[in-house]
Amino acid sequence: MELGRRDSLALLTDLYQVTMAYGYWRAGRQREPATFELFFRRCPFQGGFALGAGLAECLAFLRAFRLREPDIEYLRSVLPSTTEEAFFDYLRTVDASDVTVSSVPEGSVVFARVPLLQVKGPLLVVQLLETTLLCLVNYASLVATNAARFRMLAGPDKKLMELGLRRAQGPDGGLSASKYSYIGGFDCTSNVLAGKLFGIPVRGTMAHSFIMSFTSLEEVQPRNLKPLDGEEPVDFLSLAESWVSQVCDSLQVPPDRVNRGELAAFVSYAIAFPRHFQGLVDTYCIMGSGMPNFCAVALALNQLGYRAIGIRVDSGDLGKQSKEIRWVLRTCSANFQVPWFVTIPIAVSSDVSERSLEVWMQEGNEIDMIGIGTNLVTCPLQSSLGCVYKLVTVNGCPKLKLTEDEEKMTIPGSKVVYRLWDAAGLAFMDLMALEEEQPPRAGQAVAVHLLGRSNEARRVTPTAVEILHRIYFKDGQVCQALPSLMEIKSHAHNSLSKLSPAHKRFQEPEPYQVREPSPGGGL
Amino acid sequence: MELGRRDSLALLTDLYQVTMAYGYWRAGRQREPATFELFFRRCPFQGGFALGAGLAECLAFLRAFRLREPDIEYLRSVLPSTTEEAFFDYLRTVDASDVTVSSVPEGSVVFARVPLLQVKGPLLVVQLLETTLLCLVNYASLVATNAARFRMLAGPDKKLMELGLRRAQGPDGGLSASKYSYIGGFDCTSNVLAGKLFGIPVRGTMAHSFIMSFTSLEEVQPRNLKPLDGEEPVDFLSLAESWVSQVCDSLQVPPDRVNRGELAAFVSYAIAFPRHFQGLVDTYCIMGSGMPNFCAVALALNQLGYRAIGIRVDSGDLGKQSKEIRWVLRTCSANFQVPWFVTIPIAVSSDVSERSLEVWMQEGNEIDMIGIGTNLVTCPLQSSLGCVYKLVTVNGCPKLKLTEDEEKMTIPGSKVVYRLWDAAGLAFMDLMALEEEQPPRAGQAVAVHLLGRSNEARRVTPTAVEILHRIYFKDGQVCQALPSLMEIKSHAHNSLSKLSPAHKRFQEPEPYQVREPSPGGGL
Repeated sequence: MELGRRDSLALLTDLYQVTMAYGYWRAGRQREPATFELFFRRCPFQGGFALGAGLAECLAFLRAFRLREPDIEYLRSVLPSTTEEAFFDYLRTVDASDVTVSSVPEGSVVFARVPLLQVKGPLLVVQLLETTLLCLVNYASLVATNAARFRMLAGPDKKLMELGLRRAQGPDGGLSASKYSYIGGFDCTSNVLAGKLFGIPVRGTMAHSFIMSFTSLEEVQPRNLKPLDGEEPVDFLSLAESWVSQVCDSLQVPPDRVNRGELAAFVSYAIAFPRHFQGLVDTYCIMGSGMPNFCAVALALNQLGYRAIGIRVDSGDLGKQSKEIRWVLRTCSANFQVPWFVTIPIAVSSDVSERSLEVWMQEGNEIDMIGIGTNLVTCPLQSSLGCVYKLVTVNGCPKLKLTEDEEKMTIPGSKVVYRLWDAAGLAFMDLMALEEEQPPRAGQAVAVHLLGRSNEARRVTPTAVEILHRIYFKDGQVCQALPSLMEIKSHAHNSLSKLSPAHKRFQEPEPYQVREPSPGGGL
Repeated sequence: MELGRRDSLALLTDLYQVTMAYGYWRAGRQREPATFELFFRRCPFQGGFALGAGLAECLAFLRAFRLREPDIEYLRSVLPSTTEEAFFDYLRTVDASDVTVSSVPEGSVVFARVPLLQVKGPLLVVQLLETTLLCLVNYASLVATNAARFRMLAGPDKKLMELGLRRAQGPDGGLSASKYSYIGGFDCTSNVLAGKLFGIPVRGTMAHSFIMSFTSLEEVQPRNLKPLDGEEPVDFLSLAESWVSQVCDSLQVPPDRVNRGELAAFVSYAIAFPRHFQGLVDTYCIMGSGMPNFCAVALALNQLGYRAIGIRVDSGDLGKQSKEIRWVLRTCSANFQVPWFVTIPIAVSSDVSERSLEVWMQEGNEIDMIGIGTNLVTCPLQSSLGCVYKLVTVNGCPKLKLTEDEEKMTIPGSKVVYRLWDAAGLAFMDLMALEEEQPPRAGQAVAVHLLGRSNEARRVTPTAVEILHRIYFKDGQVCQALPSLMEIKSHAHNSLSKLSPAHKRFQEPEPYQVREPSPGGGL
């Protein structure tokens, strides 16, 4: 961690923002009113939508935005020696108090070309904000969207756990991953600090190192455990050992295949956490050792009134293994008359990808909980959302970038975005109108065309019309009550549920309509 | 930024580290001596090497490692209510003062299966360190390696600039990207804060928004500029305008194609930065507007004694455009008798990848500086290094994980790694011997075999032998003088230069030899 919570992020920017600021200032243009829009050009992961995220962090950044003396000193050392001293004096006065930021509510479904943020204010200041805002929105939105895709593939019932901290881009990347994958639909994280800072549920059991650290049953200390409703401790190790024989017999596993270090680890863990016993069963051999040991310890606990809470597998063909494990649980459940035993949740991890989930769903599986790390937090299917921050007006004049690269063209003018809803309550179009254009109305036909193609108009009649953006920051202050993380998560869920499945398909999703009103098309 | 520089990272871990810690503590095993090794299983990007990085951050983490009262309170709220109070008392006493860490020097070339870090200490503590150490090493090493690959493709002469801040995983990810790509071979960054914190050279010019913010020549204020060696200001705008006609004539471009807003932007920037004028030439049309405007302003500056320092292109076919731009510079250089004009550096950016560099090298190019963002900092070719942290001894006993997944097997025992050098001064083998095994000696034959394949021994005779790891942390303190960032960068460069090109190939690199000594093979 190089940065502190109380440190200024004002220098977390690209140098050209500062050289441009000097250019504006030298030309006396620093206070000209300007509007920038922050948007992405293509939906990530070849999908049909994204979730907008990062807003709360942007607002915290704006509120604190100010260059401090050491920042100014550093800039002076970097800019040419001919830079006028009065420019640095001016920078000392700069903050976000004249900046207005409108945004979609955090967690909203958003689409290519539709601004996530609209940033208005003095040209020099809104230019200086670019890089940091992009940095705070890009990854947040990408990982929230990635999480939402995993959630859609997994369906509503399986628990999803984020465990990518060790694969993230450093401490802050890991915290962002935990936070925004929770918004996107995950249930919990392994990241303790994310739990502490954000109130996200944290989960965890044991790693292979715990199992491997035990070699023999002599290492089990203490050996005793009190029953759930009793005071008299019993020799739990002996009890578990006696169950090993019965379980091996029942599963037709040779008792000498069962690893004693693994049994010692399970017994020790169960004595430490009698109400929360889970077993990681793949350190040695799942069917020959891990499952017999797990079942023995869980059945011994059951005899004392406790219920084991889970099994975890961290290698191999996870879908197939979940079925074999369920078969073992079912066998023990039947042979030992312990009905709840068959329902012990099975958790899996180990390089789980979208493809893994697709295969499991096709082939059937007995998985209850999925832990996802690398493929969630590093977003390998598309490692960057590619948001841009484009100037659309200066001094009230629309700005159009007419480049040779058509995809990089910008759409000029400060916009109001209307989300149009159909009779089924689904969003079907985002209409990007200029501020001076007449708003569409519920129940009235409006002529619209694709962005930049005014000769191909058609008419649509929305059942309801919503203004997509709200003003979140004005006069140096956050001017909306900000939702809690849980509320943002819930908004993301609702927002996705109001999008047609056609746009949420993984294969060739139908593009969501983003259009402009056609001139004079208000009827 | 959720975390502060002075905040404890001790909770930045996976919950299972804490539940395991309780398991060890309940079994009275918390102080048993243990060794973990941190390594990766495959070289990243299908390449033949990686650069080890992140050590200095690991050491800072270890020095500060301690659970504070709010951390303990949070853990109490997360662990089962049956957790014994004495465990939390014990956690209050835990720090890294009994931990010893050996490591390869930061920036060293490293290979699959060879430990980057060896961590020895009390079982409970070294278990608690796992996730944070992985988090600090994984991304640092990955992005340093990625940077080194870009440097190898670009050759030694082109300048490489990191500009990925807006695409990184939040503020801290962006800082890590700047720092470790500098180590890996980049020359500079756009990230101002990385410049301030780490002393990395920062660079930057202007974005399209600066160009687009100007509409007409009337916006140019002031219009005057003093010559380099004179006191009398001249009307620089008029001078530049007169050059536009001459340049258009020379290049046979119709003068009405030249965008006046772009000219106004260049003139304003040149007046602000007369000794550092660079032009971003692709806002409208490179050959029809950007280059004529750039050349006009640069030639006007030249008339006053100043030299423009660069051209930047940020879209389209960058290799082809660099050649067209060089042709324009050559034409102006000849037609206006300004010899240095042809050498103005051309910088390119816009989604530059390894593939881009390969194509440019094949097809020829006139590029002097390359800015790389997304494909550097997010490492899309392989988004995670996949380092693991594996228990190799407890209480002096080697620990072997015999799993069904062969790749996930660990090699037991605490190791000394010898790097063997050939007569040409190249590293040719890393020999992983157990601590008790006899060390190899320079000039003496030693029998070696592939890891885990003792029946396939062969003999090698190293010209020189180096012990790869050094002790960096002991008794709670860093016990080696740590190199500066510049020294680490230089070590990385040297380390790579002493590796055979066969291992550095991008296509099917020859695997570097990582072996064990064969029993009794010392001669």
